Amino acid sequence: MMNDLQESPVDGQRGPADHNIREQIIAAAYDHFAHYGYGKTTVSDLAKAIGFSKAYIYKFFDSKQAIGEAICSNFLSEIIVTLEESVSSGRSATEKFRIMAETLTDTGVFLFSNDRKLYDIAIHSCTEKWSSSLKYIENIEHILARIILEGRESGEFERKTPLDETCRAIMGAMKPFVNPVMLQYNLDDLPRDKNEMISLVLRSLAP
Amino acid sequence: MMNDLQESPVDGQRGPADHNIREQIIAAAYDHFAHYGYGKTTVSDLAKAIGFSKAYIYKFFDSKQAIGEAICSNFLSEIIVTLEESVSSGRSATEKFRIMAETLTDTGVFLFSNDRKLYDIAIHSCTEKWSSSLKYIENIEHILARIILEGRESGEFERKTPLDETCRAIMGAMKPFVNPVMLQYNLDDLPRDKNEMISLVLRSLAP
Repeated sequence: MMNDLQESPVDGQRGPADHNIREQIIAAAYDHFAHYGYGKTTVSDLAKAIGFSKAYIYKFFDSKQAIGEAICSNFLSEIIVTLEESVSSGRSATEKFRIMAETLTDTGVFLFSNDRKLYDIAIHSCTEKWSSSLKYIENIEHILARIILEGRESGEFERKTPLDETCRAIMGAMKPFVNPVMLQYNLDDLPRDKNEMISLVLRSLAP
Repeated sequence: MMNDLQESPVDGQRGPADHNIREQIIAAAYDHFAHYGYGKTTVSDLAKAIGFSKAYIYKFFDSKQAIGEAICSNFLSEIIVTLEESVSSGRSATEKFRIMAETLTDTGVFLFSNDRKLYDIAIHSCTEKWSSSLKYIENIEHILARIILEGRESGEFERKTPLDETCRAIMGAMKPFVNPVMLQYNLDDLPRDKNEMISLVLRSLAP
């Protein structure tokens, strides 16, 4: 999961963009956070664990958050790629919306169940509004807007409500299942509740 | 706010139901939590602050949570009374739903802004699924179900979706604004986002 190169510049990173050391720090930090948790780790802890000096790490990242950002950007980019692929398999805007909501929820649940420490970083990213998280939400909004437009053109969805309002309101309705802070409290009746949310949104989109 | 008598038995309470000491402990605990926070306070701290022995407090409450429950039950009951009054002023089911969502959001924001420590207890109640919180949600669901039924009878709302599904899905859509854990992360664009959620729900209810 963490092998992808970080192509785009990310907040708080320094030094030559393609530097191999950067990737080493990110990978080592990921392992360290996975064992000890993001919140409890300091840059000093990281430096000791990796075997670099603190000053050397600061040549590449200006804070712990910048390293967390790099980790988040990597896996959030992968989620978006998966999401785009899944959504494109839908044969109608209705089906695409359903696939979107399900893929996002499933991804969150998978992360919560299989990589709690990465989930923990996602919560930091989300509550502290890191740029990785804001970019991720923006990407999801774009995909959603395309689906809504497609459904408006095909006659599946109503056209009276302003597009940006429709998108924002649906992003809000998906929050309990997509936002990592909220998802963790909504796991009890998840399949039913998520399906009922999807149906409510589709009723709201009816022409 | 804390002057109302606790009429119904609450989980974890012991001893004679109408005992005056019980109310004294609740009031003193409320003051103590308000200064030091619910999470950081122990029953020993409370006993010292109130000037009772720990054993004496345990005669009335079997845990710190039981005292928190009593505080929550008191203020959550008051919110329900206010909600019922506000909703009854609506002249249609549509208006009643709007008033309901707005009253609940406003109450949460008021608590967040004016009584952060009580808000903090509400978060504990909510995430730990205290009976006070479950009872509160049940009360809101009842009020919502009455509104939906009224709108179905008047022809304002569609009748095809099973009533319990409609209610659960709307409770979910309101969560980002009504659930104290979630509300605190959704304050930035609150009036707009809340209004757009209300409009989305009303579109989903259209016949």
